[in-house]
Amino acid sequence: MKIVLDGMGGDNAPQEIVRGAVDAAKAISHDIYIVGKKEAIEAELKKAGYKGTNIEIVNADDVITMEDSPVKAIRRKTESSMVIGLTMVRDGQGDVFISGGNTGALVVGSRMILGRIEGIDRPVLASIYPCLGGDASLLVDAGASSEAKAQNLLEYGLMGSIYMEKVWGRENPRVGLVNLGVEESKGTSVTKDAFKRLKKAPINFVGNVEAREVPTGACEVIVCDGFVGNVILKLSEGLAWNILKLVKTKLMSNIKTKVAALMLKGEMSSLREEFDYAEYGGAPILGVNGPVIKIHGSSNADAVKNAIWKSVPYSSENVVDIIRQSMLDLEEIIEKDEEE
Amino acid sequence: MKIVLDGMGGDNAPQEIVRGAVDAAKAISHDIYIVGKKEAIEAELKKAGYKGTNIEIVNADDVITMEDSPVKAIRRKTESSMVIGLTMVRDGQGDVFISGGNTGALVVGSRMILGRIEGIDRPVLASIYPCLGGDASLLVDAGASSEAKAQNLLEYGLMGSIYMEKVWGRENPRVGLVNLGVEESKGTSVTKDAFKRLKKAPINFVGNVEAREVPTGACEVIVCDGFVGNVILKLSEGLAWNILKLVKTKLMSNIKTKVAALMLKGEMSSLREEFDYAEYGGAPILGVNGPVIKIHGSSNADAVKNAIWKSVPYSSENVVDIIRQSMLDLEEIIEKDEEE
Repeated sequence: MKIVLDGMGGDNAPQEIVRGAVDAAKAISHDIYIVGKKEAIEAELKKAGYKGTNIEIVNADDVITMEDSPVKAIRRKTESSMVIGLTMVRDGQGDVFISGGNTGALVVGSRMILGRIEGIDRPVLASIYPCLGGDASLLVDAGASSEAKAQNLLEYGLMGSIYMEKVWGRENPRVGLVNLGVEESKGTSVTKDAFKRLKKAPINFVGNVEAREVPTGACEVIVCDGFVGNVILKLSEGLAWNILKLVKTKLMSNIKTKVAALMLKGEMSSLREEFDYAEYGGAPILGVNGPVIKIHGSSNADAVKNAIWKSVPYSSENVVDIIRQSMLDLEEIIEKDEEE
Repeated sequence: MKIVLDGMGGDNAPQEIVRGAVDAAKAISHDIYIVGKKEAIEAELKKAGYKGTNIEIVNADDVITMEDSPVKAIRRKTESSMVIGLTMVRDGQGDVFISGGNTGALVVGSRMILGRIEGIDRPVLASIYPCLGGDASLLVDAGASSEAKAQNLLEYGLMGSIYMEKVWGRENPRVGLVNLGVEESKGTSVTKDAFKRLKKAPINFVGNVEAREVPTGACEVIVCDGFVGNVILKLSEGLAWNILKLVKTKLMSNIKTKVAALMLKGEMSSLREEFDYAEYGGAPILGVNGPVIKIHGSSNADAVKNAIWKSVPYSSENVVDIIRQSMLDLEEIIEKDEEE
């Protein structure tokens, strides 16, 4: 398998990207291609003490920055690491592409260069959502499009279900629709329509879920539009971080609590790990003709390594082909349904 | 002042409603009218050992239940405690109405019986959002309408700003629009349009806020549609509750941590208080011709007492009149703007 890495994407590129690649290269036998400015990447490989044979550099003179407008950047910066990496996947020179660069550009670039899977109206960014107690769900849409039609929400549920099954090994993953209440009659005209479509789809649709149930893993695929998805991700992050900060303040408030805090050191840091997004292996872009993974702009070597790890089943389990086939199956189901 | 209480609304009615009223009656000199089944309320007053003179019972034979359809219930159950209470405010026999009953019915009833303030397209439910560190913001819309137009979001910001200033004593409260990013160009067509309108309004509009910043009090009036508001409230509740549960589990995991937990008892319970919704005085309905406050269905006597407490400035500071005047002023601003 050929894993293609955007060597220039993110705040810590190329250093942390290269380090993550070097770590991963020790554990897997697949080939890793790092796309970016050759000299900079060579220097980082040297710094990391790399001596293996399964990392290769693909030179790219240009970089898409966070400030670049997505559509323009993809069209004009043809020598950028992102465009070259996506093109490698399109042309069969790569099996999966991982980038920590400009999210909008990566979503647009995936659509423009790899193309949409037939039958998919809108490709989407899905993010792993860490649940309390150590498990993880998949949130679709994690912010690719701020609005969604009922058909889009159906696609999100279907693609998310396939991804969680094939990449995370979940059997028959529970798919839930974020809504105001659990009753089928709740919500907007869009969520009501989406409920009906999801109920008919060949997935384990558990119905509406309230936001209150999301952090406890009420469903393994959380379906919502990108605006709501963005609110769920950012609010969870902000709230969890701030509550832990508050706990820490309480622990440091006097001598007695400081003593107690010392006794609790191990437990508190294991608590922090539950909210560590670096552990979770990045956010897949679903609905395009090739596996693409977005990692945080602030990813460190560990996060890069984990994303490489998850990219293997994303490609080897043929997730893209299965989505393509399931869209054809879905058409048949709908046609049958209309005939009856 | 005449404070009207729905004696039959909520899971713990009439017991906790009456207890809260008795507690409040000791501290304030205003008259409290409890509307509901006379005998049941009399019995509770007796149980609570009430001997004062400023609580009066107004008999209502009927009750609107949680299962009732809002519009039908308001139209047909004319002898219900909710309809009688709202009618008292309309007719000047009451200055403010507080209810823990069916939320949909209370919103619809307020609109149908009290009527919308002129210029207000859509009355709204606003909820106090407890921020970390002990402060509180106001979230508008807290779930009254799942969709919103730009003009609605403008109204929410304006009314919320007045409420926080007059009832919570905040000077020039910071109003923020929940959005995907802080830049003016972010979001849906509705939020982009709302941004422009809020910028022109005579309020302290601080621009877009990301959900990540909401728990820390980035703004004192949080403006969003009811779907997003519902997600923010329920996710915060679920996440905070579950994180504290997780902390507790860690504290109880072995003998050493149990000893530490004992030492931290006081600090941990003070932490729980930060998320205690009972402390915050209920959710005002804004945009109708009279002050109405919704309290949780599960409110205990303390929550009832706090809502009574906050109902005083809601009425005495003439919040409704000020909203009415501000809508007229806003019209002038818009007209002037169009002339220029």
